[in-house]
Amino acid sequence: MTHAIKRQETNMGIMSNVVEGAGLVFTTGVLAKDLDQDMRGQTRQVLAEIDRLLKLAHTDKSKILWATFWVTDQRNREAMNEVWVEWIGKNLPARATVGVTLAQPKALVEIAVVAAK
Amino acid sequence: MTHAIKRQETNMGIMSNVVEGAGLVFTTGVLAKDLDQDMRGQTRQVLAEIDRLLKLAHTDKSKILWATFWVTDQRNREAMNEVWVEWIGKNLPARATVGVTLAQPKALVEIAVVAAK
Amino acid sequence: MTHAIKRQETNMGIMSNVVEGAGLVFTTGVLAKDLDQDMRGQTRQVLAEIDRLLKLAHTDKSKILWATFWVTDQRNREAMNEVWVEWIGKNLPARATVGVTLAQPKALVEIAVVAAK
Repeated sequence: MTHAIKRQETNMGIMSNVVEGAGLVFTTGVLAKDLDQDMRGQTRQVLAEIDRLLKLAHTDKSKILWATFWVTDQRNREAMNEVWVEWIGKNLPARATVGVTLAQPKALVEIAVVAAK
Repeated sequence: MTHAIKRQETNMGIMSNVVEGAGLVFTTGVLAKDLDQDMRGQTRQVLAEIDRLLKLAHTDKSKILWATFWVTDQRNREAMNEVWVEWIGKNLPARATVGVTLAQPKALVEIAVVAAK
Repeated sequence: MTHAIKRQETNMGIMSNVVEGAGLVFTTGVLAKDLDQDMRGQTRQVLAEIDRLLKLAHTDKSKILWATFWVTDQRNREAMNEVWVEWIGKNLPARATVGVTLAQPKALVEIAVVAAK
């Protein structure tokens, strides 16, 4: 089986922001640009960036199959989910939300998705 | 390339319990229903739920390609693996087991899988 | 849709080191063999093992779509990324790097990848 692989937007020389292959679209794990924002603000920024990345790959949030949410404090989960449900609409992916440490000390959430084309 | 996406069982209004697309089946990260159980009991409950979700998507555990195990204490890993090997049989997926914090304070393990149809 | 699933190298009786299905190749989460090495040394060992696993599945690092990096201390990320960029070359996957606890106390990094065939 041969699949074309398409990679877009080199990020810090270590990753591509969005990669297509095997009928799937993978976004890199996204942090908010303004890390002084609270959980709602950071989640909004992350999801806006995911919109942009999915569009680059000619797909959109209605085709997300899987989402991983990495949070630094599980107690922030509800605020995150409020923003998430407004954004995602009715096409809900499978997902997991786990508590970890993130690359930037002020980051509260990182999200990556796998979408169909 | 066009793939039908099928989503089943909305969970808490934020995710679908099982999603099919691009020839793959993604289960949401599953916690045990009875969080007073020990690692063996919680793992049994999680795997029984994964059986149920895979069946909803017309696949089964023999077709799991990838499994992620999130544990709150790596020292519980052996008890989890004992239950896992009894359940999974000979069709072993690739996997990772990493220590994180989970959404419920008494949860010891969360598991998500990616299966082929 | 029917896909052949191929599993190679049973590891500790609980997982396969590399699994193919649905046009994708999943490697298990790899730790360094010599855990007395520093982050650079451990990362080199992990990536060499991933080379070996991808070759078993008749693919290679130029076809990696997604990579997950689990680190025990985010401050070690730069050393890891130095080794990573030397190894990965120009075909950069999407990725996430999150801080967790790993199965072995001296392990500093675990990496798993998803590649196209």
